[in-house]
Amino acid sequence: MLLENMTMVEVKEKVNENSIAILPLGAIEEHGPHLPLSTDCIQPEYVVEKVAERLGAFVLPILKYGQCSSTKNFPGTITLRFDTLRMMIEDILSELVRMGFRNIVVLSGHAGRTHMTALKLAGELILEEHDEDIKLLILSDYDIAYTMNEIEIPVNDGHAGMIETSRIMAIRPDLVKGTAESNHPNFPPFMVLKHPERYFPTGVMGEPQLASKEFGEKANVIIIDRLVELIEKMVEKNA
Amino acid sequence: MLLENMTMVEVKEKVNENSIAILPLGAIEEHGPHLPLSTDCIQPEYVVEKVAERLGAFVLPILKYGQCSSTKNFPGTITLRFDTLRMMIEDILSELVRMGFRNIVVLSGHAGRTHMTALKLAGELILEEHDEDIKLLILSDYDIAYTMNEIEIPVNDGHAGMIETSRIMAIRPDLVKGTAESNHPNFPPFMVLKHPERYFPTGVMGEPQLASKEFGEKANVIIIDRLVELIEKMVEKNA
Amino acid sequence: MLLENMTMVEVKEKVNENSIAILPLGAIEEHGPHLPLSTDCIQPEYVVEKVAERLGAFVLPILKYGQCSSTKNFPGTITLRFDTLRMMIEDILSELVRMGFRNIVVLSGHAGRTHMTALKLAGELILEEHDEDIKLLILSDYDIAYTMNEIEIPVNDGHAGMIETSRIMAIRPDLVKGTAESNHPNFPPFMVLKHPERYFPTGVMGEPQLASKEFGEKANVIIIDRLVELIEKMVEKNA
Amino acid sequence: MLLENMTMVEVKEKVNENSIAILPLGAIEEHGPHLPLSTDCIQPEYVVEKVAERLGAFVLPILKYGQCSSTKNFPGTITLRFDTLRMMIEDILSELVRMGFRNIVVLSGHAGRTHMTALKLAGELILEEHDEDIKLLILSDYDIAYTMNEIEIPVNDGHAGMIETSRIMAIRPDLVKGTAESNHPNFPPFMVLKHPERYFPTGVMGEPQLASKEFGEKANVIIIDRLVELIEKMVEKNA
Amino acid sequence: MLLENMTMVEVKEKVNENSIAILPLGAIEEHGPHLPLSTDCIQPEYVVEKVAERLGAFVLPILKYGQCSSTKNFPGTITLRFDTLRMMIEDILSELVRMGFRNIVVLSGHAGRTHMTALKLAGELILEEHDEDIKLLILSDYDIAYTMNEIEIPVNDGHAGMIETSRIMAIRPDLVKGTAESNHPNFPPFMVLKHPERYFPTGVMGEPQLASKEFGEKANVIIIDRLVELIEKMVEKNA
Amino acid sequence: MLLENMTMVEVKEKVNENSIAILPLGAIEEHGPHLPLSTDCIQPEYVVEKVAERLGAFVLPILKYGQCSSTKNFPGTITLRFDTLRMMIEDILSELVRMGFRNIVVLSGHAGRTHMTALKLAGELILEEHDEDIKLLILSDYDIAYTMNEIEIPVNDGHAGMIETSRIMAIRPDLVKGTAESNHPNFPPFMVLKHPERYFPTGVMGEPQLASKEFGEKANVIIIDRLVELIEKMVEKNA
Repeated sequence: MLLENMTMVEVKEKVNENSIAILPLGAIEEHGPHLPLSTDCIQPEYVVEKVAERLGAFVLPILKYGQCSSTKNFPGTITLRFDTLRMMIEDILSELVRMGFRNIVVLSGHAGRTHMTALKLAGELILEEHDEDIKLLILSDYDIAYTMNEIEIPVNDGHAGMIETSRIMAIRPDLVKGTAESNHPNFPPFMVLKHPERYFPTGVMGEPQLASKEFGEKANVIIIDRLVELIEKMVEKNA
Repeated sequence: MLLENMTMVEVKEKVNENSIAILPLGAIEEHGPHLPLSTDCIQPEYVVEKVAERLGAFVLPILKYGQCSSTKNFPGTITLRFDTLRMMIEDILSELVRMGFRNIVVLSGHAGRTHMTALKLAGELILEEHDEDIKLLILSDYDIAYTMNEIEIPVNDGHAGMIETSRIMAIRPDLVKGTAESNHPNFPPFMVLKHPERYFPTGVMGEPQLASKEFGEKANVIIIDRLVELIEKMVEKNA
Repeated sequence: MLLENMTMVEVKEKVNENSIAILPLGAIEEHGPHLPLSTDCIQPEYVVEKVAERLGAFVLPILKYGQCSSTKNFPGTITLRFDTLRMMIEDILSELVRMGFRNIVVLSGHAGRTHMTALKLAGELILEEHDEDIKLLILSDYDIAYTMNEIEIPVNDGHAGMIETSRIMAIRPDLVKGTAESNHPNFPPFMVLKHPERYFPTGVMGEPQLASKEFGEKANVIIIDRLVELIEKMVEKNA
Repeated sequence: MLLENMTMVEVKEKVNENSIAILPLGAIEEHGPHLPLSTDCIQPEYVVEKVAERLGAFVLPILKYGQCSSTKNFPGTITLRFDTLRMMIEDILSELVRMGFRNIVVLSGHAGRTHMTALKLAGELILEEHDEDIKLLILSDYDIAYTMNEIEIPVNDGHAGMIETSRIMAIRPDLVKGTAESNHPNFPPFMVLKHPERYFPTGVMGEPQLASKEFGEKANVIIIDRLVELIEKMVEKNA
Repeated sequence: MLLENMTMVEVKEKVNENSIAILPLGAIEEHGPHLPLSTDCIQPEYVVEKVAERLGAFVLPILKYGQCSSTKNFPGTITLRFDTLRMMIEDILSELVRMGFRNIVVLSGHAGRTHMTALKLAGELILEEHDEDIKLLILSDYDIAYTMNEIEIPVNDGHAGMIETSRIMAIRPDLVKGTAESNHPNFPPFMVLKHPERYFPTGVMGEPQLASKEFGEKANVIIIDRLVELIEKMVEKNA
Repeated sequence: MLLENMTMVEVKEKVNENSIAILPLGAIEEHGPHLPLSTDCIQPEYVVEKVAERLGAFVLPILKYGQCSSTKNFPGTITLRFDTLRMMIEDILSELVRMGFRNIVVLSGHAGRTHMTALKLAGELILEEHDEDIKLLILSDYDIAYTMNEIEIPVNDGHAGMIETSRIMAIRPDLVKGTAESNHPNFPPFMVLKHPERYFPTGVMGEPQLASKEFGEKANVIIIDRLVELIEKMVEKNA
C-alpha cells in the first residue's frame, strides 16, 4: 500500500491507530566503480515493499537524499547537512502522527553514524512533543545485515563491499557494472579527517569480489524476516 | 539519464560544465477525492523524463515532499516547514555545483507560492555563494500550464481541477478514482487563515468534471516543449 | 489614532477585542532616477492614515525596512534577510495579540513576492500559536492597485512605473525629481539571477512617463475605499 | 539629509567613504501615565536631525521597534526578541557598508542593557565580516544624558523620570499628558524576574514631577553637542 | 555539597523545593602578564564554596568557558559565541528545575556586559517557560566587588587590576607571577572596535601594583557575606 | 601543564605548531546508586593528566556537561541539547586553532552515540573552515576500554558497570558508595523511547558486582598507554 497512490478520502478511511507507517530512507552516494549512486535507496525500497505486503503497512515515499560523511568528497555523492536531514525527518514524522499513525518505522538503507543520529534526534523530539503513545522504530537494514548469523559474512566487509554488492545483484542486477577490487582502508583510528576519501580512492571498503546474487537473495530474505519480526513485536507491545 | 543509476566513475567522466541537471520536486498533498496524494510528483517526473531525453540532461532523484499551505490540515497532506524545504534545496543545489554542473533546472509539480519562494531563496543563496557562472532555472510546470494559449483552459481552474485531473488521466489513469464535483472556494481575500480547508472541504479548487485524457496529453506535450525551449535558451545564453 | 502617541493608560482603556490595528510596512529601495527610496513607505502611510480615520483604527508605527530581491544590488536599497523580516513581523503581531487586538491588518507598500511570503509565514505562525479567534489581513496596496478596473492602467506597468509615480506625485510631489524613461526589462523567464539589475539599469519597470497627479489621486481613493471595504468585511465575519 | 528622500542616483553621487550615516533607533514602550509610547523614538529623532544638520550626515529611517525587558508585560509595549533586533541591525549595517559608508553611528533612544547588547553584537559581527576600515559608534543618548555634568540631575532618575519627561516637554509638549508620581521601584537586587512590572505598576522609575521644559531644552543641547563631538572625533581618527 | 560527588539516589532524597543550587561560571581569558587565564574561575569557585557551606546549598560544577569581548584577540583567551553561552545556561537551568530546584543562583567570575546579558536572557527564558515559582539570582561577584564601601578601591580599577590581583593573591598566591604595570586604556568612547586589544597591549586595565593579599582577603570576606545575604533574602521572599 | 594556570605571556611563548592540546569532556549523569554523577568526568580528567605528563601536552579545562540520552529522565542527570554541545565544541576548537595549536585531542569520558556525534560534527566543521593542516583526534576513553584485550571484561558490561565502577574505585575510592546489583536492561531493539529509564530503574547496565580496584588500575594504565600511542602516531603523521 503506497500512501502516495491513495486519495485523501482513502487515507481518512483507512488510517487508524492500529495502522503501521514505514518510511524508507536512502542516500545518493558513491558506491565504488561498480554500484549505482542509489545503492542505499534500492535496498530499503525493496525490503520495505516486501515487509509492507506481509504486514499490511502503509509505505511512505522514500527520501533518496541522506547525510554522508566519509564519502562526501567523491563525485556523485549528494550529502545533506545534518540539520537538514534532522528537520526533514521531524517534519515527516510529525505529519504521520497528525495523520493518525501510532506505529511508525523508519528504515534507512544508509547506515552512517551521523546520518543515523540525525534520525534518532528527530525521533526523540517527536516523542517528546506528543503525549500520544507513539511506537517508533528507527534502524538501518545494515543494523540487521551486519548481525546475520544464518550466513557467513566477511569480517571487515562494509561500504560497497560483499553484502551490498550481493544485495544489488539480487535486486537490480542491471545496475551492477562489473565488480571492484577488495579494499580495506587504513583510517587512522579516531581521527576526524578533512579528506577521508584519500584512504579509499576507489570508494570501496570491503570485499565486493566475494559477492554473489545467491548471497544477496539470502540476505534480503533474512533482513525482511527480521524486520517483520521487529515490527510485529513493536506493535504487540503493551497490547 | 537518471543520475541515481550511474556509478561515481560515470559521473566523473560524463558531468562537465556543459551538462544539464534537472531536479524534479513534488509534494504529498491531498488532491480531492479522486486524485492521488502524489499528483504533484507524477506530473514533473513525467515531464522531466521526456525533457531530459530530448536534451541529454541528467535527472536527479525527485524530492516527493514539499511545503503545503492551504491543504495543510487535510488527511494525507505531508507538509514540510518552509526552512526544511529551503535547506534541502540549498544542499542539493550546492552539491550539484560541487559535482560540476553549471546548468541547473528545478521543476516543481507543486506550485504553492510559499513553496516556490523557498526554492527561490535557496537558489539565490547558492548563486551568492559561488563565483562560478551558474545558470539556474526554477519553475513549476504550472507556471507554464496556466499560460498555455494553444488550448482552452477554464477560467478559475486550480488545485485538483481540470488541468491536473486531465494530466493524471494521461499519465497514470490507473490512479484516478472517478471524478469530483467542481468547486470554487470563496476565500476571504487576503486573509491569513488558520483553517483554509473549511473553504473547500472536498479539497478541490476548479473544474475536475471538465477533465479529459486528451486534454491532459495535449497539455503535457505543450509543457514539455515549452520547458525544452526555456532550457535551451538558458544554456545558449552568453554563448 | 497613532498608537505611538498614546500612553499605556490610554492603550489599556481603549484597546479591546473590537479594536482594529493596522501595521504599515515599507521598504527602502531604489525607485528609478526620479522617485525617492521611501516610495514604498509613502504610499501605505498615506493610505493607512485615511483608512484608519474612517474606521477608527489604531495605526502602528511603520516599519520602513523590507526585503528586496531584484533591486538588491542598486545603490540606496537596504534589504533585510528573509528571516529578519519574518521574525520582525512575528514579534509585532505577537505583541498586538498580547495587547488585546483581534482584528489586525498588515499593509505593505512593497509587494515583492518573497517579501510578501515572509509576512504570510509570520502571520500563519501567529495564528497557529494562539487559540484566540484572530482575524488577520495581510496585503500590499499593489494587490489592489494592479486590479483597479475603475481606471485604465498600462499593461506592463510595475516598479517605479506609471502607477507608483502618479501616486507619489499625488502624495509627495516635492519628492518627485522629474521623470524617467519607460522601460520593460527583458528578464529571462524563471531564471534566478545573481545580477537582476543588469536587466533594468535605470531601476524602472514600467511607464513612468504616463504618470499624472490626477491618476495618482484617483488610484489612492480607490485603494483606500477598497481597503476600507476589505477590513469592514473582515470585522463583520462571523458577527 | 534624509536618505529616504533621496533617489538612487543621488545616493550614488553623494555617498562616499567620507560620508557619515546615522541610524536612529527607538522603542514602542510604556512610559508611565503621562508620556507617549514613542518617547524613546522622539528623542533620538530630534537629536539626530540636529546632529546631521551640523555634520552634513545622512539620516537613516528610524527603527521604532526595540527590545524591552522590565516593561515587557505592560500594555502598549511592543518588544522584539533579542535575535530579531540583532539581525535587523546586522542587516541595516551590512547594507550601509555595501552602499559605501565607512562612518556609521547608531543612536538609540532606548537604553536597556539587553537592547544595547544586541546592537553591539550586531556591530561586532559587521566589523568582523568586513576588511574595510569601518568606524562604528553605537550608543544611547542616555549614555550621554546620565553623565551630563553641566546641569544637575536627580540621583535615581530613570525610565519616564525627570530627564525623559523634560526632554519630551521640550520636543513634543503636545504629547505630554500631565505628569506622574515620582517612584523608585525596589527591585530585589540581581534577581531575574518574571513579573518586573509588579515593582513599578505606574511604569515610572524616577522623578517626573521635577521635570521642566527648560531642563529638557538644556539637556537636548548638551546631548547634541556631545554627540557632534563624539562623531567628529571618530571621523578624524587615524586621519 | 558538590552535586557532582553525589549519586542519583542522594539527589532524589536530598533535593526539594527548599534546596538552593549555585552555579559558578568563569572564563578562560587573558589577565595580564601576571595572572592566570583562569582568574575568573578561581574567584567564584572560592566564593561559592564558602557561601554554600554557610547556606547548605548544592554547588554545581563550574563552567570554565565564558564569552569575552575586549580580550578576544589575546593569546590564551577562549571565547564562546553569545548563543553558545546562552544555550548552555538555558540547558543547565532547565535541568536544575527538572531536578526540583526552585532557588537558583548563578555567580559569574567574569563580568563582561555581553556575557552577563547572555546569562540574563537564558534566565528570562527559563522563567517564561515554567509556571513554577522559581527564584533566580544572576550576578557577577564583581557586581558586588565594585560597590564595596567597607574598603577603599582605586577609582578606575578593572580587568586584571588591583582587586582581581589581590583576590588571586589571597586564594591562589602560587599562580600569581609577579605583578604588572598599572594601565588605563584610552578607549574611544562608544566605538565598537575590531581590535580592542590595541588599546591595552599588556591586557591590564587598572592598578595591579596596588594589590595586596590582605586587601584580597578582606574583599573575599565582604563578597561572601554579601552574597549570603542576597541569597537569604531571595529564599525568604514571599515566605 | 594546565592551560588555565598559565598567563597569556606564557601561552604566547610556549604554544606553537608542534604543541598538543587535550580537551577532556565529561557529563553530569546518573551512574547507579553507587557511583557519583561526575563519573564520566573523573575518568578522563585522570587519564588526560597522565597522558599530558608523558607527552608534554597542554590540558584544557574540562567541560563537565555533556549530552545524555538514555539517562536523561533520571534525577541528577544534566543533559545539554545536541546543538549546545556541538556549538560549545566548535567554539573551543576554533579558539585552540586561533591560539596556534595544530595537534588537538578531545577525550570524552561520556561515550553516548549522540554525544560523540556532536563532537564529530563540531570537529568536521572546524577542519572545513580552516586551511591549516590541523590534526584532530576525537574519542571516548570507552572506545579504548571496550576493546582492551590485555584483561578480561564481562560480555555485556556498560553504563555504571564493572569497568566504570572499577576505574572509579581506582581513582576516587572515596566517592564509591558501596555497590549495585548487576543489571542487563532489555531494551526493545531499535525503538526510540520516550522513557528509556523504565528499562533500567537502578541506572545500571552491566556488572558492577564484579568490579575491583585492581581491575580499575590495570584498565587505567592500558587506556593511558593506548592514548599516548594514538597521539604520538597522530603527531608523527606526515612528518
